[in-house]
Order: sequence, then structure tokens, then C-alpha cells
Amino acid sequence: MTKTVQVLLARRPQGDVTADCFKRVEVDLAAPAEGQVLIRSRYLSLDPYMRPRMTETRSYTPPFELGKPLTGGVIGEIVASANPKFSAGDTVIGMLDWASHTLHDGKGLRKIDPAIAPLPAWLGTLGMPGFTAWYGMNRLCKPKAGETVFVSAATGAVGQIAGQLAKLAGARVVGCAGDDAKCNFAVRELGYDACFNHRLERDYGAMLDRLCPKGIDADFENVGGKIFHAVFARLSDFARVAFCGAISEYQDKEPMAGPPKMFAIVQRRLSIQGFIISDHLPLMGEFASEVGALVRAGKLKSRETVIDGLDNAPQAFMGLLKGENFGKLVVKVA
Amino acid sequence: MTKTVQVLLARRPQGDVTADCFKRVEVDLAAPAEGQVLIRSRYLSLDPYMRPRMTETRSYTPPFELGKPLTGGVIGEIVASANPKFSAGDTVIGMLDWASHTLHDGKGLRKIDPAIAPLPAWLGTLGMPGFTAWYGMNRLCKPKAGETVFVSAATGAVGQIAGQLAKLAGARVVGCAGDDAKCNFAVRELGYDACFNHRLERDYGAMLDRLCPKGIDADFENVGGKIFHAVFARLSDFARVAFCGAISEYQDKEPMAGPPKMFAIVQRRLSIQGFIISDHLPLMGEFASEVGALVRAGKLKSRETVIDGLDNAPQAFMGLLKGENFGKLVVKVA
Repeated sequence: MTKTVQVLLARRPQGDVTADCFKRVEVDLAAPAEGQVLIRSRYLSLDPYMRPRMTETRSYTPPFELGKPLTGGVIGEIVASANPKFSAGDTVIGMLDWASHTLHDGKGLRKIDPAIAPLPAWLGTLGMPGFTAWYGMNRLCKPKAGETVFVSAATGAVGQIAGQLAKLAGARVVGCAGDDAKCNFAVRELGYDACFNHRLERDYGAMLDRLCPKGIDADFENVGGKIFHAVFARLSDFARVAFCGAISEYQDKEPMAGPPKMFAIVQRRLSIQGFIISDHLPLMGEFASEVGALVRAGKLKSRETVIDGLDNAPQAFMGLLKGENFGKLVVKVA
Repeated sequence: MTKTVQVLLARRPQGDVTADCFKRVEVDLAAPAEGQVLIRSRYLSLDPYMRPRMTETRSYTPPFELGKPLTGGVIGEIVASANPKFSAGDTVIGMLDWASHTLHDGKGLRKIDPAIAPLPAWLGTLGMPGFTAWYGMNRLCKPKAGETVFVSAATGAVGQIAGQLAKLAGARVVGCAGDDAKCNFAVRELGYDACFNHRLERDYGAMLDRLCPKGIDADFENVGGKIFHAVFARLSDFARVAFCGAISEYQDKEPMAGPPKMFAIVQRRLSIQGFIISDHLPLMGEFASEVGALVRAGKLKSRETVIDGLDNAPQAFMGLLKGENFGKLVVKVA
């Protein structure tokens, strides 16, 4: 018998996520039954997409269930196995509970080699955020040399990779982030041509006119809201929008109106594509090979914030939704 | 020397197009110089896209020039030719002036065979509106059997073809139009499964919930504004929007806000593609062969409104923007 700590969804948030949306429980887990493994969590990934899953929506991406553990990307170690594919000591990655230990049937669980990259990187550049950045930038935005690409949340887990991929394609890359340190990091470390602090700037349009004088040819959209409105108004003819997230809208009680003048979509032949990376898992191998090569060649930098202890995950997640993290946010569970 | 009547853009409209936006002039035309032809206009196509071209915009589709004739799709007859490619008596189609006669260098002018179809059809089903419908429906909406497709302006020049192409693909097709006679025509003649009169309906959302109970898998958007907002809220996962026009917004003095909750684009993995058919001229042959075959097989119906006399073109165009035409609107110039 193993004691596990789990974090449950206790209440669906109305507007801002609050501490009482979460509940910590201790549960006894039985030994693995035939086919099962017992996993000890080492790192838990916290990502903005979890916020919409806390609300019930009509989308077929299932919302988190009330009274059940939240789930997320987890790197863990097999503690005990009754599944021939896994042995005690294996390091694995999968969509698991926010929990110290999980009993799992092994489906969708992948073994990883911790010698290749530090464990948090498997939840960032080499994991779902990196895959999301690669798919959205290289498959949807398709930047060409000399084009201008905008990345909102420029230093977030996804944005920091997306911006660097656009630079590697030869584009001028402009972003925005929520404080000056992030903007400095974007320009000095990630290679952005410019990055503005959207908390200090009142007139996003004037700022974009200055930083993107030839318009915006591709937008990797993570933020939505007023920043997207300003970007939308400056999209060039035949511009592509890879719509990945809208973090500024997740906690709104009333949905915000879309940008004015939808007819611009026709006049400027815009292409706007929403995507969720889990629809594109068959491309995972291609991503891993391309981005893995870039990482090995030292061509992709990344920054992580590591929070200590599962009990701090709710607080860290609330901070993530307010932009308090820097780069990829992971929780060191144990 | 030939006298021609021309209709000039006298003033850019602010909001509704009014009669004083147009000016009728008579001009003397010289005989064709080397390489030129003199064309007598027979039919002039009037289309909604002309309205945005009356305003100055930042798009690179050039606006009409002040003090110059408006232009549009015209079918005419060569009266005199100093161009070896054309002979007097040829019937031709091209982008020409709103005028009784035009001197032209022959570039972009195509000969057509009037025996194949009545002349107005060359400006409708077999012309740019048909090409627009075919590209938007078959290349962007890509309806599958059993899917639900929505077509706004269901009986307009483009909509009437788009809706029938969706039916031929096996989709359930729902539309809206501006009066009961048009709705009846859509259902009885064009084969729409349902069509509602948007002038009688206050709650578009409730109507769409009733007519499209499984959501909307593809939207051929001609109208924009409140109808698009209602459609947007009901798009299914992986739905496609072919954004062709936004006639309800063309005369707005203040641009209307977009639909709320842009994050739906992500959640439902929407694909929204604006297009202007002149970008796709290389596909014209494929369109002509596919749609020509459907016309010969009697599988595409269409309705035209023919207005008599170039002097009535401005009034007819103002009516078009208010939905007063029925089907494709053409002016019989002479």
C-alpha cells in the first residue's frame, strides 16, 4: 500500500482561479494489478491550457472532472510494475494526475532517456510546449526570410521556442511580454528583434506600428484580447494566424468581443487557424527529430521556473495565469 | 469617332452609397490605335465587392479612382479591332468600364461562345460569381456528406451556386436570405434543406439552433455582422469558414466588433480563410470544366435579375447593397 497526495478540482472557477478551487487529499493506492504500473511523480508541467479545462465547455476536449485529480504532463519514475513494457527505475512521461504517485495502465506512457536532456526540458522544449511551438510556427505561420512575425507571450513555454524558430527561418521577430526582465531576455537571449512590455504600454497599436512598420505577416497567438485586436489590425495581405491560446481571456467572466472589421479577413486574405497540439500527435516523431537536432546544436535556448513541492502547484498555477512565471513553469514534485 | 456614356465615381461614399456618388458623362472615343479594340458593352455585372472598392482602404486591391469610370465584369462585342487577336463581331468578357463603349488593349479580354450559354450566365454561374462559389465551397469549405453547411445570402449570385455545390457534396445545407420569396426559391429550386428570412427573424442564434441542431461544419460567409456572430458561436470542432464577403458591414460608418470569445477558434480548431477570387485565376480552367459540366447536365440552377440600361446601374447597385435584387444582378447596357 502506497500513500499518494492528490490535488483535486474542488470547484469550477468563476473568473479568477482561487485557492478553494483545489483540494489536497491523501489516498491509499493498492499495489499494481496485472498490466499496471505505480509511478512516483518527479516533475509536473503547469500550462495555461489547463485553465479552460477547469470550466465546463461545449468543446469535445473534456473538461477536468469535479472531485477528481487535475491532470497534466508528468515525468515520473516507475516504482513497481506489473506491465511487461515497464520496469522499476524507468523514467517515463505521460498525462498523469497532479499527484505524488499514480497507478497507471501504461497507455500513452513513454519511456525517456534522462541522459539526453535535463528532466524539465522534457516538459518544455522537447515536450508539448516545444511541439506546440514547432507545429504552430513551422506548419501554420510558415515564416519566410524577411517577413515580420509576432509572438505574444514571447518568453512563455511555447512563445520562447516559437520566436526562436521564426528567427531560424530568417524572419524579423517581435514579441510582447509582461515585464522588462522578460523583454530583455527575449531580445538578448532568444534573439527577438524587439519585445515590448505590455503592462507598461497603453497603446499597443502605436507600439506595433513602430516595431512592425511593414505590418505583420504571421502571428503566433497566445494571448488574445486587446493585444490580438492590435495585431489583427496590422496583419498584412496573406498573413497567417496560428491561434494557440488566449490567456488574457481565460479568466474573463464576460467574453470579450472580437476585433472589429471582420471584412479585413477577406480584404487581406487572412488565414486564421486554431489548433490543439494533441490533434497532431502523429507528427511528434518529426518534431522530436527536428527540434532535438536544434537543441543538440545549441540553437534553441529556454528558461524554466521550477517550483518546489506539489502542495505549491495551485499557487504556482494561479501565478501562471497572471504571468508571474518566467519561461516554462514546472513543479518539482519530489 | 464614337460617343460613349461612362459612369464615373464622383464621390467616395460615407456610409450608404447615394446617387451623387456617381456621375454620368459622355466622352468621344478615337478609333482603335494599333493593338486596341473598341468594345460595345452588352451586359455589366454588378457585385457587392464593388462597394469596398468605392472606399479608400489600405488593402492592395486598388480602390476605384475618383473621377474615373467604375469598372466591373462586362460582356461586350468587338465593334472595331486593330488587335490581331480579335475581330469585329467577337463576343468578349473582361474587366471593363461601366460604359457603353470602351477602348481596350485586349489584355485580360477573353472571347466567349454565346452558343454555349446565355450571355448573363457568363457573368454569373460560369463567371466570377460561379468561380468564387466553386473555390470557396469546394476548395475551402470542403463539405463532406452528412455535414451541415451554412450559406449566408443564400440566393445571391455567389450563394446560389455555393449552396448547390454543397448539396452535390451530400451536405445538409442551410441558408438565410432577405425575403420569403428568396427563401422559397432556395428550398424549392436550389435544394437547400432550410432557409430563413433574416429580416423577419430577431434571434438568429435560436433559429440556427433549430435548423442546424448538430452545429455548423462549414460556413460560406457572404454577409458578416450579426449573422456571422450567430454562425461563429455554432461552428463545430474543425469547422471551416470561407470568408468571401461581409455585405452587412460595407455601409457601416463604425466598424462592427467581431464575434465574442476568439478563444473558440482554438477550442474548436476553427479554420477561417479570407479570399478574393482574382488571386486564384490559375484555377479558372478547372472551375470552367467542372462547373461547365454541371451546367450542361442541368445540375445547377440560377436566377438573374436583369436591369435595363446603363443609366439605371447606379440605382440597381444601391439596391443590391440593400438586398433588393434576386439572384445575380446584371445590367443590360444596350
